[in-house]
Amino acid sequence: MKKHLLNQMTGRRLLAPGLLLSLMLVSGAHAQDGASELAYAFDNGMLFLCAVLVLFMQAGFALVESGLNAAKNSVNILSKNVMDLAIGALLFFAIGYGIMYPGNYGDVANGYFSFGGFGLYTAAEDASLSAEVDWFFQAVFAATAATIVSGAVAGRMQFKAYLVYSAVLTGLIYPISGYWKWGGGWLTKFDGGMAFQDFAGSAVVHGVGGFAALAGAIILGPRIGRFTNGKSIPMPGHNLTFATLGALILWVGWYGFNPGSQLAFSTKSDIDAVMLIAVNTTLAPAAGALVATMLSWILFKKPDLTMSLNGALGGLVGITACCDCFTPAWATVVGAVAGALVMLGVMVLDKLRIDDPVGAFPVHGLCGVWACLAIGILPNTHLADGNTNFAIQAIGTLAICGWSFVTMGSLFLALKAIGILRVSAAEEHAGLDVSEHGMRAYDTSEPIGVPSPAVPTPA
Amino acid sequence: MKKHLLNQMTGRRLLAPGLLLSLMLVSGAHAQDGASELAYAFDNGMLFLCAVLVLFMQAGFALVESGLNAAKNSVNILSKNVMDLAIGALLFFAIGYGIMYPGNYGDVANGYFSFGGFGLYTAAEDASLSAEVDWFFQAVFAATAATIVSGAVAGRMQFKAYLVYSAVLTGLIYPISGYWKWGGGWLTKFDGGMAFQDFAGSAVVHGVGGFAALAGAIILGPRIGRFTNGKSIPMPGHNLTFATLGALILWVGWYGFNPGSQLAFSTKSDIDAVMLIAVNTTLAPAAGALVATMLSWILFKKPDLTMSLNGALGGLVGITACCDCFTPAWATVVGAVAGALVMLGVMVLDKLRIDDPVGAFPVHGLCGVWACLAIGILPNTHLADGNTNFAIQAIGTLAICGWSFVTMGSLFLALKAIGILRVSAAEEHAGLDVSEHGMRAYDTSEPIGVPSPAVPTPA
Amino acid sequence: MKKHLLNQMTGRRLLAPGLLLSLMLVSGAHAQDGASELAYAFDNGMLFLCAVLVLFMQAGFALVESGLNAAKNSVNILSKNVMDLAIGALLFFAIGYGIMYPGNYGDVANGYFSFGGFGLYTAAEDASLSAEVDWFFQAVFAATAATIVSGAVAGRMQFKAYLVYSAVLTGLIYPISGYWKWGGGWLTKFDGGMAFQDFAGSAVVHGVGGFAALAGAIILGPRIGRFTNGKSIPMPGHNLTFATLGALILWVGWYGFNPGSQLAFSTKSDIDAVMLIAVNTTLAPAAGALVATMLSWILFKKPDLTMSLNGALGGLVGITACCDCFTPAWATVVGAVAGALVMLGVMVLDKLRIDDPVGAFPVHGLCGVWACLAIGILPNTHLADGNTNFAIQAIGTLAICGWSFVTMGSLFLALKAIGILRVSAAEEHAGLDVSEHGMRAYDTSEPIGVPSPAVPTPA
Repeated sequence: MKKHLLNQMTGRRLLAPGLLLSLMLVSGAHAQDGASELAYAFDNGMLFLCAVLVLFMQAGFALVESGLNAAKNSVNILSKNVMDLAIGALLFFAIGYGIMYPGNYGDVANGYFSFGGFGLYTAAEDASLSAEVDWFFQAVFAATAATIVSGAVAGRMQFKAYLVYSAVLTGLIYPISGYWKWGGGWLTKFDGGMAFQDFAGSAVVHGVGGFAALAGAIILGPRIGRFTNGKSIPMPGHNLTFATLGALILWVGWYGFNPGSQLAFSTKSDIDAVMLIAVNTTLAPAAGALVATMLSWILFKKPDLTMSLNGALGGLVGITACCDCFTPAWATVVGAVAGALVMLGVMVLDKLRIDDPVGAFPVHGLCGVWACLAIGILPNTHLADGNTNFAIQAIGTLAICGWSFVTMGSLFLALKAIGILRVSAAEEHAGLDVSEHGMRAYDTSEPIGVPSPAVPTPA
Repeated sequence: MKKHLLNQMTGRRLLAPGLLLSLMLVSGAHAQDGASELAYAFDNGMLFLCAVLVLFMQAGFALVESGLNAAKNSVNILSKNVMDLAIGALLFFAIGYGIMYPGNYGDVANGYFSFGGFGLYTAAEDASLSAEVDWFFQAVFAATAATIVSGAVAGRMQFKAYLVYSAVLTGLIYPISGYWKWGGGWLTKFDGGMAFQDFAGSAVVHGVGGFAALAGAIILGPRIGRFTNGKSIPMPGHNLTFATLGALILWVGWYGFNPGSQLAFSTKSDIDAVMLIAVNTTLAPAAGALVATMLSWILFKKPDLTMSLNGALGGLVGITACCDCFTPAWATVVGAVAGALVMLGVMVLDKLRIDDPVGAFPVHGLCGVWACLAIGILPNTHLADGNTNFAIQAIGTLAICGWSFVTMGSLFLALKAIGILRVSAAEEHAGLDVSEHGMRAYDTSEPIGVPSPAVPTPA
Repeated sequence: MKKHLLNQMTGRRLLAPGLLLSLMLVSGAHAQDGASELAYAFDNGMLFLCAVLVLFMQAGFALVESGLNAAKNSVNILSKNVMDLAIGALLFFAIGYGIMYPGNYGDVANGYFSFGGFGLYTAAEDASLSAEVDWFFQAVFAATAATIVSGAVAGRMQFKAYLVYSAVLTGLIYPISGYWKWGGGWLTKFDGGMAFQDFAGSAVVHGVGGFAALAGAIILGPRIGRFTNGKSIPMPGHNLTFATLGALILWVGWYGFNPGSQLAFSTKSDIDAVMLIAVNTTLAPAAGALVATMLSWILFKKPDLTMSLNGALGGLVGITACCDCFTPAWATVVGAVAGALVMLGVMVLDKLRIDDPVGAFPVHGLCGVWACLAIGILPNTHLADGNTNFAIQAIGTLAICGWSFVTMGSLFLALKAIGILRVSAAEEHAGLDVSEHGMRAYDTSEPIGVPSPAVPTPA
């Protein structure tokens, strides 16, 4: 059972053999069946619930990205978020899952790319989880990686280009680098792979999304009017209530993202790990929000709500890679630094004249990198146990983020070359809702309840 | 224990006797108690969490229906959704539960109507679930059936008529047809009943709601201005961000609706079934959204966000009846067909000059019928095992949907006859928020943060 | 194990010793380990999921409070809600947890204040729950208490004053009175404490928040224009869709708040208690919404959506203290009375010229008091078993609510004295979004998708 052995050595696909073993070895034959069957049910049930929380994050992303952009691009952003979930689920079912979890553990020659089969091919089945719930959990992760890009390219990318992008990312690019770390590839400490640590995907998910977002923002260029006569002109979002609700939904969904990544829940050691993860997933965003808010207050003279929100999200990304290996106090530090990095990243992008309307790169890219490097710097159990070091963390982070940046950048360049990347200036002025979808998100043409005979009747 | 036997034969009220039996027969007396008590706790706990997800769907319906209608009717729609939940819970507690689950299983003479008792009468208690959680789960299903109608009759039905409707549906109509299939009535394969298959309620819940919605839309007639001079004039919704958030919340809530309908989670076979259901509940809406979007793109030249959303919801309704019996690949097909049916249904209603502002009938009625008929057509375990056939599926679907259409249509006609069904034209023009509730949903009369001395102060 | 003994005697920190004991005494050594380890995992896992639901309530509060206030104060309200969560988590980690659960059970001399240690100090660890999940669950309760105040002081309090308030409440005031009841203090029936009953915090959480809200509303004074020339002038909220979504999210989150407060789930008696709590948490808000709606219909001639929402919330607060001790029928009565109290409270505040823009005091303060007193009046298990009486309920409620009113009132007076409590009239007119945060929540200055060349391009 190579995979089983592997699973005991990696954070991501860890099994829960403790209970099973102790029961198998010692107890009576049938009582053990009851308890072990129940443990299996509990492991599957918890992972299912965590996957539902992660899928809920799609609503969070949709609201944050829509709320932080102009009203005239809302239908477009919402359509992108619904469709990358749909396309992501279908493609991750068709080929993505077989690429990411090919089942050929330890085959070093195939450490960079492999393919196990189409659909829910049976190799993924193991003693502690059904292939179905494993796919469900991984599929919503793939959709998360895809949807990060949506906000960064808002207001100017053609809808069809976004559909092509999300198909390529969820079907191919994300599963390949995901395989490197979580599927048994060259970044997995097994049969000679590197002990790169990224528990729930600061690089594997958020780094991939964040660097694809950066590539998209650079290659598309800024929105018209965003940088005029050498000056940076803010283009405020149209609905900060949506953005705030979205950020809180993301925070809630992250309790599926991080705790669920333990993948096993039925033993004391597993559930204790999950509870530490929950605490760290609370303190890091709290610290990130506080630091980013205070920095914005100092730098801009007023506390900036969008910085509070992005600070919290940066804290969440920052703790994702090692939510299981830091103490709560160190998790707070990691989140606080992430909050500062979000602020720094937003300002640096502004200086570089790169237009990332929602701060997707600072939050997901920059804090994703910070999360993985922090494991090589700050005191934590991996470092203490000698299971990683700074060089390995740097190599893994660079490889995964670079992979996404180069491949998705190439795709965006190719789409640009054939003329389907960016909408025309007239379409951009009109807004993508009308130009790409023929509809508006908000209709205030009707009387909003004014009982006046002079008001035109709806037609 | 007649009910226990029945439970093993129906999808809906299936128990988890495997673990209990094996333990009772073989293992030591006390270890078994620990494991079986824990299995009971897990079954109840999971069903409770699923019920919470289903209750969350109320927020999804409120947002979809409000968002797809005019701003001037928002308070009315929101009020209807809050009140049908309140009234539904109270009436399903008072009498609905006793009608739907009377406990007289196998009493063929009473296969059409029966009554077990008021409140949480004890007959519902069985070995694997408490009556309390069973009621909670069933009550939120009743509220779901009721709230489907809200959007279809939006903009013109009197508030008091809607309250009467929702009381009759949740207290009487829904529990009666629900009893036919899930409570031991004539559509239950038991003591001579028909082997009609509808796992989580494509007909029992969504068909009932969808056909009541159709009856309401027809009897009310269209909104003023919706069909003018023989032309169909679209009346766009006022907030597609709300509609999108609502659809995503419904998708999330459906993971309580479908997986929870397994009603048992603690054995390997049960939890494996639940995980397959989760996968199918992901792929079907993904396919529905994709197909509906592509069809709208082809037919209207632009991808229509409302079609993406309704396509996803149609896919969810489409897979609800047999989320447990299709393979993931066939579930994708079922969802894809549902996406096409939504588009078709919207166009046919338009041709027939029936005004269903949110597409409630295409999504819940039409896809509900498709879901049940698909079990008699496409390869699945029920068909393979000879546990159903197309004729039985057609009879059951016709009976349940027809029951709702005829009874609720009669109610709407009666309300019309006594003059409390539809608001006046003047009230409709002004909007139901002002005419029925004396308030507006959105107030922009105050300065939105413009620090100008010319701006009037709030008063 | 004094704490263990205590836990068996209080509702709040009740353990699940039944399963463990029976297994330890009788069954074989290793089978018991499997089942008891799994019971531990299940208890922790369920409480974790309940805590996530409670954290989600932050989004509900943000939407209710923002939606029921003017658009020009939205950024401010949203910022307050995000920051009181961040500050609450950090301070409840730093000192609040050690104050609220000091671990010195039975030390009567220290029944009013004690301190166990910083962070997740180990004293809180017991056999059935990890300190981590216990902290997580308690921390989101602290944040809930804090955020209740946000709506009542909306539109006129300085942002920095709110940050100071929320730090003091979550770090000091809430943990101290929380300790009295849930941490082993003088309101805990143990070693001579009073048998004050408040299962999930009608007084401990909602009373503390509601009476702090009342103190804030009184000391701040009303918004400019709210009471003019002796007349009460309603200032309607800017977005009732947000308010409704928020109320439904709160209802959903309450299934973590009340059922989670059982703190143990793995035995039949515990899970049965949880399921009764779930039923009561459904019927009470349903009754509250119905009664408040009907009363508003009678008194104002139209059914008022904000009353439906606040009636539901009042019903939830009303059942929180004894969701475990009433039958469903009595829970319905408790909720119905709460719905009437909300209406009454809103009208009395209006007469007294106290401006509470969202009805925070009627919902959380008044219904919190009603909830605790109802335990001393209406038939329930505590009363039947002689475990409480009206006098004890009155003393405990008065002590906790009075503590919050006096201490937080003093704080608000101190902040007023040093001139940082209320914004200037000009700032209030402009709206706190611009004056305190330098930004607007809603931007409609750009073309909303109108493809006209005359429309100015975004700049």
